[in-house]
Amino acid sequence: MSTQPKKSKWSSESLFKDLRMDSKAAAVEFIGTTYFLVLGLGGIQAATGEAFASGSVIEHVLYISTCMGLSLLVSAWLFYRVTGGLFNPNISLALVLVGVIGPVRFVLFCIAQLLGGIAAAALVFALTPGPLASNTFLQTGINSAQGVFIEMFITSALVLSVLMLAAEKHTATPFAPVGIGLTLFACHLWAVFYTGAGMNTARSFGPAVISGFGYPQHWVYWVGPFLGSLLGSAFYTILKVINYRELNP
Amino acid sequence: MSTQPKKSKWSSESLFKDLRMDSKAAAVEFIGTTYFLVLGLGGIQAATGEAFASGSVIEHVLYISTCMGLSLLVSAWLFYRVTGGLFNPNISLALVLVGVIGPVRFVLFCIAQLLGGIAAAALVFALTPGPLASNTFLQTGINSAQGVFIEMFITSALVLSVLMLAAEKHTATPFAPVGIGLTLFACHLWAVFYTGAGMNTARSFGPAVISGFGYPQHWVYWVGPFLGSLLGSAFYTILKVINYRELNP
Amino acid sequence: MSTQPKKSKWSSESLFKDLRMDSKAAAVEFIGTTYFLVLGLGGIQAATGEAFASGSVIEHVLYISTCMGLSLLVSAWLFYRVTGGLFNPNISLALVLVGVIGPVRFVLFCIAQLLGGIAAAALVFALTPGPLASNTFLQTGINSAQGVFIEMFITSALVLSVLMLAAEKHTATPFAPVGIGLTLFACHLWAVFYTGAGMNTARSFGPAVISGFGYPQHWVYWVGPFLGSLLGSAFYTILKVINYRELNP
Amino acid sequence: MSTQPKKSKWSSESLFKDLRMDSKAAAVEFIGTTYFLVLGLGGIQAATGEAFASGSVIEHVLYISTCMGLSLLVSAWLFYRVTGGLFNPNISLALVLVGVIGPVRFVLFCIAQLLGGIAAAALVFALTPGPLASNTFLQTGINSAQGVFIEMFITSALVLSVLMLAAEKHTATPFAPVGIGLTLFACHLWAVFYTGAGMNTARSFGPAVISGFGYPQHWVYWVGPFLGSLLGSAFYTILKVINYRELNP
Ligand SMILES: [Ca+2]
Ligand SMILES: [Ca+2]
Ligand SMILES: [Ca+2]
Ligand SMILES: [Ca+2]
Repeated sequence: MSTQPKKSKWSSESLFKDLRMDSKAAAVEFIGTTYFLVLGLGGIQAATGEAFASGSVIEHVLYISTCMGLSLLVSAWLFYRVTGGLFNPNISLALVLVGVIGPVRFVLFCIAQLLGGIAAAALVFALTPGPLASNTFLQTGINSAQGVFIEMFITSALVLSVLMLAAEKHTATPFAPVGIGLTLFACHLWAVFYTGAGMNTARSFGPAVISGFGYPQHWVYWVGPFLGSLLGSAFYTILKVINYRELNP
Repeated sequence: MSTQPKKSKWSSESLFKDLRMDSKAAAVEFIGTTYFLVLGLGGIQAATGEAFASGSVIEHVLYISTCMGLSLLVSAWLFYRVTGGLFNPNISLALVLVGVIGPVRFVLFCIAQLLGGIAAAALVFALTPGPLASNTFLQTGINSAQGVFIEMFITSALVLSVLMLAAEKHTATPFAPVGIGLTLFACHLWAVFYTGAGMNTARSFGPAVISGFGYPQHWVYWVGPFLGSLLGSAFYTILKVINYRELNP
Repeated sequence: MSTQPKKSKWSSESLFKDLRMDSKAAAVEFIGTTYFLVLGLGGIQAATGEAFASGSVIEHVLYISTCMGLSLLVSAWLFYRVTGGLFNPNISLALVLVGVIGPVRFVLFCIAQLLGGIAAAALVFALTPGPLASNTFLQTGINSAQGVFIEMFITSALVLSVLMLAAEKHTATPFAPVGIGLTLFACHLWAVFYTGAGMNTARSFGPAVISGFGYPQHWVYWVGPFLGSLLGSAFYTILKVINYRELNP
Repeated sequence: MSTQPKKSKWSSESLFKDLRMDSKAAAVEFIGTTYFLVLGLGGIQAATGEAFASGSVIEHVLYISTCMGLSLLVSAWLFYRVTGGLFNPNISLALVLVGVIGPVRFVLFCIAQLLGGIAAAALVFALTPGPLASNTFLQTGINSAQGVFIEMFITSALVLSVLMLAAEKHTATPFAPVGIGLTLFACHLWAVFYTGAGMNTARSFGPAVISGFGYPQHWVYWVGPFLGSLLGSAFYTILKVINYRELNP
């Protein structure tokens, strides 16, 4: 009896066996990210156009938070049963770290999401007057360390919402996009005023590309959310290891 | 053995076999569209009366978006199990294109929805002081092509929400009106400031009739949403053809 | 064989057979109405205190609408499985008209709800500075007929939401309080600016009692919502008669 | 046959038999409370920074209410299936009173929640400019008795929402965090303007520790919410005793 040689999990054959599916899913993620960010960045564009003439900073920030939160809520809901509706390379990273998606899909998703961010910023720029208003940068009084920490903290909350509401299976799982969108909303209410609330490197990268990287410290929106992915995934892994379902009797 | 001659699907007998049901459903769509738009256009009327004395543009736009979003959310929820609660000829078009409703129901629904838009605008005009405030028109700085594209884009998002949340059957389907209403909300947060966020020819047509078509470029609110129906339906059809349920393992 | 004489449905024995249950339910409705309206009228009190110093009319109206909408949403949700969480004699009327509750429970509920309105207005008055700010009255430019019609229209929408979301049994029924609260929210966004958005005689009566009926045309908030109950119940009855479930194939 | 002596329910052996689980759950409550309050207090910090330059009191209060309401909604949803997501010693008290958690878990939860409040206030202070803006204190015109009563009333509403939506088991139970978060939102819309809307001794204690107890009448935020726990639990117990499920036929 001849035994077939066992393939390594990381052999190219094994890695790329779902390449067709992964590519289609990535194409849909590109479109979904574009929808999400045209609505979100478009709303920020409107808020800035409006605030130019009138409006307090507080209503500007509330408007942006509502706009980004609801845009993700509905876009993720529409695409949830197609690709998961991530629209965010930092969420993709968390999902590959905890084993929900494979490495090839992770890479394709990141590319699709970054391209979606660029496409959305380009569309908003083409369709509305004035310079693009949706770049993220640190407000006066916030240093880089604070910026990185804030971005890490809010991204970890978003990652946790995806892992606890969507990746974990339970009765409310079909409504995960509602909880995930409202998490983005709540995080924006804190962080828009301080860092612009990136929470998603694709969301920060798109406007930066279209604006020629005209704002300093763009690296904060790569490092902070990256650390947030690690933190959120690590905390989730601990919850799984201690078998969290037994804590609530 | 005599064979009965097979009826064509497009024979008048086949087309009109549900005429009684289609007519009743259209009558309910007329009433539902009237409810939706009295609340929505009434809120816009209030916002304009209020803003006359005070208020920033940004709070005006947030108010209108909240008002239109929640009005559709609740009206669609109330009528969802009766007729689907479309209240929008562009949604009707998408549903006939993907085969959810037949051509006779489509025509009757469009008529009912356009009449509902007129009835709602007339009621708001009769019940509140001042000229009707809810006409849609392109803001300064937005050309026709931009207007058509914005209207196409946001209508396609609304069409996708109806197709993915309500037409597709899954656990969250009974809550589709929530997702559809919030999609309208999110789209308004971007587009009210630029095009008035028509997204629905009945919503634009009603106030135009009552106001004597006093605003230029009304055609934008026919062409843009029409193209949005085509775009949304086409994208949905592609998702079905590639069997999207298999993309998310 | 002697036959027992058949009791009339309206005999006192038959009417009062659930009196113990009806009385307990009415006591809970009193408490629930008090909770709902302390939160709602308390928020209006705060908005008026705040607006005294600053704030546009538009943000005042948005605040009141959010406050009343969410207060009903949560109060109704908390009490939904106890008594239905009506908190509104016009809803009670609709439920007795369509046969969901009996005449004795209807009368006890109305008394409890009106007393709850008074208790809530008294509590808000006792706990906060300044005169009571939550009386409903017609704004300048709105005549009595317009006021009655607006109140009728928005109350009929609220009645329909209770009948279609809560009285009708379907998958989303346990979430009816969400839809009912958001209906109140949407109706307020239109009507607060014109009539104060009574929609509930208990809500208008409570502050009127505590303020000594110091505002004209209080009768509008009895007649308008009463007609709204009739309209909403009649439309619901028609939907049942035409067997609405068959309209959506 | 020798009988084993029956252990008292309050023997140390019985009390501490779940100590491992209770400790892990308390550790998670610490982290969850920190997430909830970093988002909530962080949003208040932003609102105050923003309002310094512009913005009406009314938009300040709406911002804070949205921010606290959504922060609890999402944090509780994320942690709901782990520990219940209480994040509030007054909720812990209600749950021990009605028998949902034991006395050891109650004590550990209170300690974890108070420490979480301190950690969150410290993080917000470290990450943002300016003095901490989230202390609760009585506004001008509100005396201690009014303050205690308002805090008691709103805390009892929050307690009732936890008991009726989460502790009671029914179809909507998996969505309890939504109702609980919106209850906090509605209560804030009334009370932020008068007492700051503590409703949670951990939420008031954290900023007080970081600010050196620089605001008078801090005791109000211990006594009021404590009485609210008693009131809410007592009302719930009465509803159980009268078998409330039978009231709604
Ligand atoms: Ca441009
Ligand atoms: Ca303002
Ligand atoms: Ca007073
Ligand atoms: Ca600081």
